[in-house]
Order: sequence, then structure tokens, then C-alpha cells
Amino acid sequence: MEYPISAAEERQPPLPPKPGPAPGCPPHDGQQRPHSCAAGFVLVHAGAGYHSESKAKEYKHVCKRACQRAVEKLKAGAMAVEAVTAALVELEDSPFTNAGMGSNLNLSGEIECDASIMDGKSLHFGAVGALSGIKNPVLVANRLLQEAQKGKLSAGRIPPCFLVGKGAYHWAVHHGIPPCPSDKMATKFSLSAYKRNKRKMELAERAESEYKQTKKRRQSSENGGLVDPSPRRDDDSGCLDTVGAIVVDGDGNVAAAVSSGGLAMKHPGRVGQAAHYGCGCWAENACNLNPYSTAVSTSGCGEHLMRTVLARECSAAIQAENAHQALLDTMQHKFISSPFLASEDCVLGGVIVLRCCRCVETQPPQDLQALLVEFLWSHTTESMCVGYMSAQDGKAKTHISRLPPGAVAGQSLAIEGGVCRLGSLAD
Amino acid sequence: MEYPISAAEERQPPLPPKPGPAPGCPPHDGQQRPHSCAAGFVLVHAGAGYHSESKAKEYKHVCKRACQRAVEKLKAGAMAVEAVTAALVELEDSPFTNAGMGSNLNLSGEIECDASIMDGKSLHFGAVGALSGIKNPVLVANRLLQEAQKGKLSAGRIPPCFLVGKGAYHWAVHHGIPPCPSDKMATKFSLSAYKRNKRKMELAERAESEYKQTKKRRQSSENGGLVDPSPRRDDDSGCLDTVGAIVVDGDGNVAAAVSSGGLAMKHPGRVGQAAHYGCGCWAENACNLNPYSTAVSTSGCGEHLMRTVLARECSAAIQAENAHQALLDTMQHKFISSPFLASEDCVLGGVIVLRCCRCVETQPPQDLQALLVEFLWSHTTESMCVGYMSAQDGKAKTHISRLPPGAVAGQSLAIEGGVCRLGSLAD
Repeated sequence: MEYPISAAEERQPPLPPKPGPAPGCPPHDGQQRPHSCAAGFVLVHAGAGYHSESKAKEYKHVCKRACQRAVEKLKAGAMAVEAVTAALVELEDSPFTNAGMGSNLNLSGEIECDASIMDGKSLHFGAVGALSGIKNPVLVANRLLQEAQKGKLSAGRIPPCFLVGKGAYHWAVHHGIPPCPSDKMATKFSLSAYKRNKRKMELAERAESEYKQTKKRRQSSENGGLVDPSPRRDDDSGCLDTVGAIVVDGDGNVAAAVSSGGLAMKHPGRVGQAAHYGCGCWAENACNLNPYSTAVSTSGCGEHLMRTVLARECSAAIQAENAHQALLDTMQHKFISSPFLASEDCVLGGVIVLRCCRCVETQPPQDLQALLVEFLWSHTTESMCVGYMSAQDGKAKTHISRLPPGAVAGQSLAIEGGVCRLGSLAD
Repeated sequence: MEYPISAAEERQPPLPPKPGPAPGCPPHDGQQRPHSCAAGFVLVHAGAGYHSESKAKEYKHVCKRACQRAVEKLKAGAMAVEAVTAALVELEDSPFTNAGMGSNLNLSGEIECDASIMDGKSLHFGAVGALSGIKNPVLVANRLLQEAQKGKLSAGRIPPCFLVGKGAYHWAVHHGIPPCPSDKMATKFSLSAYKRNKRKMELAERAESEYKQTKKRRQSSENGGLVDPSPRRDDDSGCLDTVGAIVVDGDGNVAAAVSSGGLAMKHPGRVGQAAHYGCGCWAENACNLNPYSTAVSTSGCGEHLMRTVLARECSAAIQAENAHQALLDTMQHKFISSPFLASEDCVLGGVIVLRCCRCVETQPPQDLQALLVEFLWSHTTESMCVGYMSAQDGKAKTHISRLPPGAVAGQSLAIEGGVCRLGSLAD
């Protein structure tokens, strides 16, 4: 069902839908809504950073499970926003990802998470930042989105779409989301990474205070980077990054979500792109102005992704005729070479994107519609772990995308993707 | 020096710079940098909402003082980012504005502030959200921006650009910004507004629990809106809104800033547009791609301004030939009629924008350059209070812009502005 393409290949226009019902679709009885076909597609990522071969299996496995959770929801008739939430919960629950359980610890040794979600149908958005004590931050973001869709609060108050810190925690608990003690969210792995990072930081600071020269300070920090998302190949700490997912459901609605424990050793209260509108995720159904529905989720260095508003930029770009070329140009000119990051010698991030449009079969039965989904991932980090699956597939495909040999992380990029046709029945 | 224009007038192209040195410029001695001319321009706002005639004097007065503070900095040779910070401190210190001192209280009766600043030269950004216990949140945002410009922290850590809550407070104090007990930041006015709002909220909730019907709840809330930024004409509580400023200095660098106590009776931890990248303020010096330097600051309902990324949208729009028409179109199509706010019957906000470009005199002395500054404000709220001043002016001009008679707040807009020529000496 998927036709992988890579950076090296010349992109072909999407294949025209084949006649006849798509695999997995029930025979047409003229009564079912497109939705009941249980079509849909999910693409997830478990972070852009560096994934060692030794950990590859775990990352692929969590991506696979996340895809399955989303597809289970889609098959049960759920909309995209529900399915994307289910995928995120699975990604957050893995102790291997830097989101929810096993998140990076901040300078004070605490876990503070960011997450956001966007519904392409309503265009509503929900986000939490620097949230402690909740196992699944995406559930709070999703609940904020759901509550905002209900309209105004008592006495005409406008419902919040973005809550942070203690206030976010109390709102979540008040809305029935169970608290989780922060120490239960730390893992053996995150605790040992914290201790290792703290020791390296102390050594670096001691060296700096000896030099007491800003220039020297910068040089030493450049050489001794411990929390760089693109670390040395023998060190896995940098692969602990943001997770995310994008979904299109059988009705062609899109949704996107992202969740992150943030940079290791970040200052308490630091909020990254995962909570920032337009930066962590984006989803927008097709409308008069936009022929395609689009969804995007990002990963990498939060400050770089924020200052380039990368999710929204990618979404706008892939309305162009050639999505592959448009994403390549965006990653090159609006990320790596962005004037907003001119002072950065190493621009680190990754995105997953999809766009879809309806196409009606040209041969009988003409009332069988198809959703044509084009999906891509691109990253400037050493590697990025992705998984994808359509509701018609038996299992998810997973892949660790890596920069080509010799390419320099932060200055080069990889781009890959595929096309998928989802069968569904017309209204 | 300024040529005010209004919505009703047909916009004329900017007047060509007059020959000869501009008033306030020292005679050309061929050695001074353009900067030493101490040219520059500032435009401030004290919120988009409703400003009663009875309070108009106070609002105008604080705008005047804010302009003077910025101009003092410009005359002392400060760059735009320093001048805009000085203006914001003055606006925050006023007990009449909803920023810093006298901010709206949240549901728990606490003050939590948002602020952000952007430097058009470095394109760096600093922001704080839900910050308590600091009198001038803009100083923290500015310090975050300054620290980020110094490069990486010890051990290669990326400096934060956005901090929230307790973490932001501790960072601020650690960086020498003095704390201020929250109860000293509340005023007689903000406390009485809180009590009045709380009573109205309790009444509305009692009525709602009697009906126990979502539909009825919404109707009652629509009728009894107490924290609507566009309230009844006999009630000033809605004029308590975000403040901001935009500046261009003698070298043509731009900067923008915004600061807000947020919506009255907001949930603790709620962060609005004032802390959100691209939503509260934007500043971008001219570059290869953009002929104009632009700066924008917004005010109004945070959720509406966030979901339309209004500051960034306005900045991009006014690169068009006709800034007045471009801003009008943006306010109409990307704010009032934005698909992102399709479910809102009343879209409330205001912006101040400026753009500037250099023009060389055509008559001797040819080495006298001028900066041509076009500035505009537009709002969908009942009114918006603005002030502006160039370094060549003796005092600031202030104005309360109001919707035309019969226009409906949230569905119509007002737009006004002017042009200002700043003389400076070429390198």
C-alpha cells in the first residue's frame, strides 16, 4: 500500500487510485458513511537525535505499538484527534522516549513536560508547558482542546488553550486526569543520565570559572556538549527527544500532536516547542484556500523549532504541487539557513508531515472514494525514528532514518517518505 | 513631522524626504555615526478594549510617559530593544494598565503576568509566562533575550528563550531582577474588579447549575459576560488589557515588546498571546528578502491573537507595497474572518505596526540619509489607546482610537496611522 521514496529518488506524482475496493474495505452496501470504512493513516516519530543500533529495536517497537493504538481507534470509528492522542499516550508511556515516563530531568532533577495537540477539523489547539506530576501530558492538552470546543465558561470567560506549571496540574486533576508522583516517572535510565550530565556540567563550570573568559567558556562548551541532541555516537543521551504523531481519519480529518520532556538539564520552567503554537505540531483540514489537508509534528532542539515556527511553515509549504520539493526547500531555507538561526552553527530538528486529498474513482463503482495520503519525514539530526501504518495494514512499518554517510548533523538533511491510498465509500 | 491618516482617507504613498537636515539633527560633521543623530521613533499602546472618557486622560498620560522614556533612551544612543524595554517598564508601572502593577487577578486572586520582547536585528526573542512576584515582567523577557545572545550555557546547554511560573521567577531573581510581593502589585482598582467579577461569576454559575443545560449555560454566559474585553460602556473593567510598544532606532533597527496581566479571572497557569512567539510581538530588520524593517505589538483576547499568530501575520503582510491596505486585509481576513476563529462570534484584538526603510536625499547634502517610518494601529475592540513620538519631537502625541458609530465590536475594525521622516547622517 505504501510506496517509499527517498531523497535520492526523483519524486513521482501520486499514483492514480486503482479501481475496485481497497483492501480492508467492506463491500459497498450504499449505507455506510465513509467513516464506517475505518480507513485512516498514522505516522509517528520517537524523536530526532541519535539512535544507536543497540537501542534501535526498542525505538522501533514503541513506534509500532503507537501506530497500532491509533489504528485501533480509527477502526473503532474514532476521529483523527482521538487516534493521535492514543498514539501519543503509547509513546509517552515508553521509558525509552523523552516524553511522559522517562522524560529528561531538569537542572533541579525534576520532570517538567510540554505537550500540544491540534485538530485540523475545528482548528482548535490545546497545550501544556512545564507540567509536573501527570503521566500523560497529551491527555491534558487534548482535554484543553475538547473543553475549548464547548464554548465559553461561566460568566462569558474564554476557556484557556495553554496552561503551564502548577495551574496546569490542578486543572488536569480537576478534570479527572489522574496525578502521578514525579519520582515514579523517572527511570533508571533518566536518573543515570541526569547524574552523568550533572557531573559533566560541574566539570565544565569548574573549567570555565578557571578561565573566566567568555570566549574560552564558549569554546569549552562547544567541545564538551553533553545535552546536544546530536551527541557522540557512543552516547545515547541525545536520542531522548520529543515524540509525536500525525493522523488522517476515514473522513479526511487530520490531527497532530507532540510531547516532550524537554532538553536535559534545562532550567526549571523552560518551555520548548512542544507546547508552542505552530512550532510543535500543526493540523489543518482542506478548505477553500488549501486543496490539501496537512498535519505536521516536529522534534529536536526546541529553541530552533520555536524560532522558525517550523510546524506551521511546513504545513503551509506542502500545499505546493510537489510536497517533497517543498519540504526539502523549507528544511533547507527556513530551518538550516533560516535568518532566525543565523547565529547557530548547528540547527537540529526533524519533522514528520502528511498531506491528503480526496480522489474519486474513474471506473465503477464510482461512489468509491479514495483518500490519497502523501507522507514524509526529514531531519537534520543524525537520525530519526519513525513508524507508519494505515487502517488497512496488518502491522506498522518502522524505520530509523539516518543522514547519508559524511553528512554533518545540523547542516545537512535527510528526507524520505511515501504515498498511501485509503479506500472509503462516498456519502 | 507626522501625517496622520485615517481609515476613511485614501492612503497616499509616503512623501519623499525633504532636503536639508531634519529638525533635531546636529549639523553634519562627517564623523558621527547615524546612531549619534539620536533619531528614532516609538509607538505604544495601552490596550485594546474599551476606554471610557472618564479614564481617557490617565491612559493618554501613561502612553505619553512611555514614549518619553523610549525617546530618552534613543537620544542617549540606545538601540531599539533597550528603548522598547524602557517604554514597557513605564506602561507596566502604571496602576491603570493590565500589566505589571495593577494587573488583572486570576481565579485564585493572584497576579500572573506574561511578557515578551523581540529584537529585529538579532531576531532573538525572550518571553515569560504566568510569572508572579516580579514587578516588571518585560525586564525578565529582555534579560532572557540578552542572555540567549551570549551563546551557549555551560556544557553546551542551549539557553532558554521562554520560561514560565516558579522557574521563571527563580531565574529572574538569580539574574538580579528584584522580586516584588504579589500583594504589592494589586491595586485598589484591580482588587475591587476581582471582587465584582467573582460575585458575577458565582451568580452566573448558580444560574447555570439551576438550568443544567449546556445550551442555556452558553446563552446566560453570552448575556452576562463580565470579563469580555469589550464590555458595556459603563464598565471600565474590560479596558484592562495588554500593553506594548514598537521602536525603530537611528540605525533603522526595530524592536517590539508586549506585557499583560492576562484575562481577568483566568485559570491559574493560563498563558496568553503576550508570551507566545509570533502572537504578542514581532520585529524583523530589513534583509535581502524583506525591503522593510517591521515591528508589531498586539493586544486583546489572547486566545484569538494566539490562534491567528497575529503579530507575525501583520509583519509579513506589511511588506506589501501599500501597508495600510495590507493591514486592513489582514485584520479583516486573517483575524475577524479567520477560519481559525470560525466558532467565535466576536473576535477581539488590536495591533500597532510600523515599517521603515532608508531613503537617501536627492539634494545636497547627499550623505544625509532619512528613515521613512510608516505607522498604523487597527482594532476590532471598542477602542484602543496609543501614543507616538519621534526623537525629534518635543512631546508625544496620544490618541484614543474608537470604532466608527454603529460599528459592532468584534466584527468591525478601525484603522489609522501616519508617516514620519527621521533624519540621520550616513556612515
